[in-house]
Amino acid sequence: MEKIYLTPGPVRLPPVVIKSLGRDIVSHRSEEFHKIYASIKERLRKVFKTSGEVVVINASGTGGVEAALLTLINSKDRVLVPIYGEFCRRGADILERAGKNVKRSRIEIGRVPSVEDIKKELEDGKYNYIFLIHNETSTGVVLRNLSEISHICKEKGVRVIVDSVSGLCGEYLDMEKWNVDVCISASQKCVAGPPGLSFIALSQEIEEIIERRKNISPSTYLDLYKILQYSKKNETPFTSAIHLFYGLKAALEILEEERLDRRIRRHKINADTLRALFHMIEIEGYSKDVVFSSNTVIVGKLGDKYADLRRRLMNEYGIVVAGKIGMIKDNIVRVGNMGIVGPYEIEKFSRAIGSISEKEESSRRIYEEYLKEFQKLYEGFDLLSELFGEV
Amino acid sequence: MEKIYLTPGPVRLPPVVIKSLGRDIVSHRSEEFHKIYASIKERLRKVFKTSGEVVVINASGTGGVEAALLTLINSKDRVLVPIYGEFCRRGADILERAGKNVKRSRIEIGRVPSVEDIKKELEDGKYNYIFLIHNETSTGVVLRNLSEISHICKEKGVRVIVDSVSGLCGEYLDMEKWNVDVCISASQKCVAGPPGLSFIALSQEIEEIIERRKNISPSTYLDLYKILQYSKKNETPFTSAIHLFYGLKAALEILEEERLDRRIRRHKINADTLRALFHMIEIEGYSKDVVFSSNTVIVGKLGDKYADLRRRLMNEYGIVVAGKIGMIKDNIVRVGNMGIVGPYEIEKFSRAIGSISEKEESSRRIYEEYLKEFQKLYEGFDLLSELFGEV
Repeated sequence: MEKIYLTPGPVRLPPVVIKSLGRDIVSHRSEEFHKIYASIKERLRKVFKTSGEVVVINASGTGGVEAALLTLINSKDRVLVPIYGEFCRRGADILERAGKNVKRSRIEIGRVPSVEDIKKELEDGKYNYIFLIHNETSTGVVLRNLSEISHICKEKGVRVIVDSVSGLCGEYLDMEKWNVDVCISASQKCVAGPPGLSFIALSQEIEEIIERRKNISPSTYLDLYKILQYSKKNETPFTSAIHLFYGLKAALEILEEERLDRRIRRHKINADTLRALFHMIEIEGYSKDVVFSSNTVIVGKLGDKYADLRRRLMNEYGIVVAGKIGMIKDNIVRVGNMGIVGPYEIEKFSRAIGSISEKEESSRRIYEEYLKEFQKLYEGFDLLSELFGEV
Repeated sequence: MEKIYLTPGPVRLPPVVIKSLGRDIVSHRSEEFHKIYASIKERLRKVFKTSGEVVVINASGTGGVEAALLTLINSKDRVLVPIYGEFCRRGADILERAGKNVKRSRIEIGRVPSVEDIKKELEDGKYNYIFLIHNETSTGVVLRNLSEISHICKEKGVRVIVDSVSGLCGEYLDMEKWNVDVCISASQKCVAGPPGLSFIALSQEIEEIIERRKNISPSTYLDLYKILQYSKKNETPFTSAIHLFYGLKAALEILEEERLDRRIRRHKINADTLRALFHMIEIEGYSKDVVFSSNTVIVGKLGDKYADLRRRLMNEYGIVVAGKIGMIKDNIVRVGNMGIVGPYEIEKFSRAIGSISEKEESSRRIYEEYLKEFQKLYEGFDLLSELFGEV
């Protein structure tokens, strides 16, 4: 049985990206590599919406988060980490493992911190940095109030570090307008590139701070000071994963053709459809407020009736979705909608849900509504097969 | 002009390896990925000559070295690091940056530590570990006495950590026979895989020590304790660079066809030829003793006559070689001979050297001798073009 992946990454790659991987190396100290890296950075700046420096690291998202946190934050700094899911917890763990001064602020699971929550924390304690997960895939929530939270932090002199590993290109984000100082993401989620690379975007001010952080990171490999020095020459300090750079470049090029706003919109209409299907079969959203429900991962709480939904989707329909992760102990289903998910996957998923619930007719109608919206969105777009393949 | 890379990695890839990269992802939590990882580990065990665990990390060689050193060595341990080149220095730096207790023992540049040097150090001080570079590409020397050094260390209860990033598959190595406790290597040198992955092979005893090193590494991403836990399930703790795993698997498969002993022998006959060409034009070897001269990187000291040899090779013949690196300040040329260098590159290099020195006839004879040896070595080998391409 052919498998359909609807997990929260890594994601299926656009055919043009796969093709870009199958070539020989260029030296990571050559002019040709400099051009590839420069082109990647230029496009990533547009995606992060920043005019600052962006670096690419040969490590997955966690490695990128670690490089940013452990180079930037020194022993005197205090960091506020609101905990509203597994990836928040991991950020706090990365900091504490390296002996940094962290305050964990617990938020009810299924919610994001409110502007009031943050205000109160910043009144009660003094912090230099806040670390936030833009899109928390363990619970399916997204910080749609990130802009307001950032502005409050700015007023209080607290710098904002955002992990948008699973948000970038799937959820709206504007580093400069929103006063985000550092934003970390990775290649294999909504960017739809090959797994293995992470990126860190820095505001001008943070770049200047990093310049004074020569010996802060305990790690040589993930030392952002050094990575930044090399990045300015369009190089990496150590041997680069050249092929992944080829793939990332191709992924950003096809994204540019698709247009960032359209990709984000596609995630939204996919997500609304997935939520409508859950609603149809009375699976409750795990996110407690639809305003803060993620468009890149849709999380539902499984009651008795569909307790084995994941197993059935897998065994009967070849659809791979995710379950609970880390600190989340409820029986949940997490449906990823990242990268190049489109009518092909949405139809398969609708059919499966329709058939499992014996609501074929309703699910078909939901899919048809979706397809109309999708077709409208992509009217006149010439590169459908380069992006989605012949599916 | 077509470029010929004779740098110390990353190296040109065999055509079958390039081909293996151009496919879509599988989930890093799937059965299919487990099989790929298991197959890689099984083959790496044969290459390292160990029956212990081997882990693969999504990071270049430096990342692998760091993961091993900073997880294994705790705050009470003392580490001896003989310094005979840039990569020795980097190992010591990685340790000191993380606050470990290091003794640097300086060795004359161009030499490796002798058995007597090590004996003396171990009599003068008490150490828990020694960190050694098997093949030091900054000076072109190789520890051909590694087996003797290891045995002395074993007698003194000092555990042996070896960086063989640029040695493995190009120089003879036998972890178990030689009592090497930890050996680190990477994908993009003599293994001829895509850059971006490193491997750590562990003896049974070290594996047991790592099991007690849960909270030693300051790095979450490069925590070998965690990497080892996941590796036992044939998984990586974080998203894997799936495509690089495809490439590494293909690289190890074609290596198995070529046979490890033949690959090592090829590096030797290539190296002897490169050295003969240097000898012909009176370029002095940088390694002070031919017994310890590396077969994977050939380093020559450039006198006045050929002071601009690197530039000429590049500009007039498209041959890319390396120069001095890091702590080495002499005007040297470093000719890499790693991975799948064969008659194609050796002929181009011979011609270039012959033409620059106006010794075409001698250089042609050196090449012809080489070709005969090469042909004898590969007699009956069916996969020449899969390995070397149609060059």
